[in-house]
Amino acid sequence: MTSSTGAGAKAVVLLSGGLDSATTLAIAKDRQFDCFALSINYGQRHESELNAARNVANAIGVADHKIISVDLSAFGGSALTDPSIAVPAGKNSGGIPITYVPARNTIMLSLALAWAETLGCRDIFIGVNAVDYSGYPDCRPEYIQAFEKMANLATKTAIEGNKLTIHTPLIDLPKKDIIKTGIALGVDYRLTISCYQADEAGRACGICDSCRIRREGFAAAGIVDITRYKT
Amino acid sequence: MTSSTGAGAKAVVLLSGGLDSATTLAIAKDRQFDCFALSINYGQRHESELNAARNVANAIGVADHKIISVDLSAFGGSALTDPSIAVPAGKNSGGIPITYVPARNTIMLSLALAWAETLGCRDIFIGVNAVDYSGYPDCRPEYIQAFEKMANLATKTAIEGNKLTIHTPLIDLPKKDIIKTGIALGVDYRLTISCYQADEAGRACGICDSCRIRREGFAAAGIVDITRYKT
Repeated sequence: MTSSTGAGAKAVVLLSGGLDSATTLAIAKDRQFDCFALSINYGQRHESELNAARNVANAIGVADHKIISVDLSAFGGSALTDPSIAVPAGKNSGGIPITYVPARNTIMLSLALAWAETLGCRDIFIGVNAVDYSGYPDCRPEYIQAFEKMANLATKTAIEGNKLTIHTPLIDLPKKDIIKTGIALGVDYRLTISCYQADEAGRACGICDSCRIRREGFAAAGIVDITRYKT
Repeated sequence: MTSSTGAGAKAVVLLSGGLDSATTLAIAKDRQFDCFALSINYGQRHESELNAARNVANAIGVADHKIISVDLSAFGGSALTDPSIAVPAGKNSGGIPITYVPARNTIMLSLALAWAETLGCRDIFIGVNAVDYSGYPDCRPEYIQAFEKMANLATKTAIEGNKLTIHTPLIDLPKKDIIKTGIALGVDYRLTISCYQADEAGRACGICDSCRIRREGFAAAGIVDITRYKT
């Protein structure tokens, strides 16, 4: 969770196609890491998120971009993977919302760990955020610290004495500061999708919790929100 | 890592189709857990391992059996997923062998965690073994403890106060004792496959490190080895 400079070292960057992960990739590049972007097709409702990830990877520039499929919809239990559960409109009323995908960050970080090991790289970036987030347990600093500790016992890389670091450059930033950081680094947020139920053309619903947080972030940052909303 | 009794509670049991995981499933059943078997198709060289998992799940009896695909061969780096890397014959000569699949147990446990959460279950079984194993970092007790700690920070289940336990009933057993335990519980080891390069008919090569450990285990247990070997 340090903010060291990469100086050309390889890093795996988890890239969802959303605002936060695009900013995280831009930060990793700015810190001079040679970036390997990893997107997970976990059975999301729509593919537009993965298209956004492709466009963001191309725009920012990466050494490689892999999309790995793992069908979390087989387990159900989330509005993001189970078509029979509706995505709620408006602000989450407290507690852990139905849009939470069980163990998603753990699975995504585990896959990043596998790729990091085959690349011989010691740095993984993930755009989790514990401020303007939606109440997900796997976005908290204590969770990331525990994952990093586990990862350093799990792998050949670690056994051989190369400590692995999970970088979370956004973890304590309000959404407005994430947006300001990304704008300063030249991120084109038109390419990103935050919406839980964007349509095939990549247009956002404008009413889900993720859209709400994004809208408020642009407003608080004093930056015009160029997101394409359906409503 | 406790040995509590399930008394009808649900448990997710990782089931590879090998000797260890079949024994682990039998132990979980014996402890009165209602077992949900999970197999991972991670791009292994052969499908016979997954067929073995299906047969073992049917023979021992489970509430459900899911096979989840995640293509780890996309990352390469292991003889078990990369056809261009040969599986070595004979005993591993020290260090971490080329059959090690990067972050495999972390990925499998993460998927088990996701299913456990949607089932509302607090128990996961995995047949890792730190005695007669092949030098894999993610089979050691300190790794399992770190995963359990991370898992208890990662999930809704844990946040709501239901502690999750990773059960490793084989972790300190020599192979001969694993086999004796399974035989006592009625496991039909003919259904299992340990070989790293079994053929489509499920016959073992008889010469890889995993075959060697299995052969020596049956011999040490004083039990006739009914494994179908090609050689």
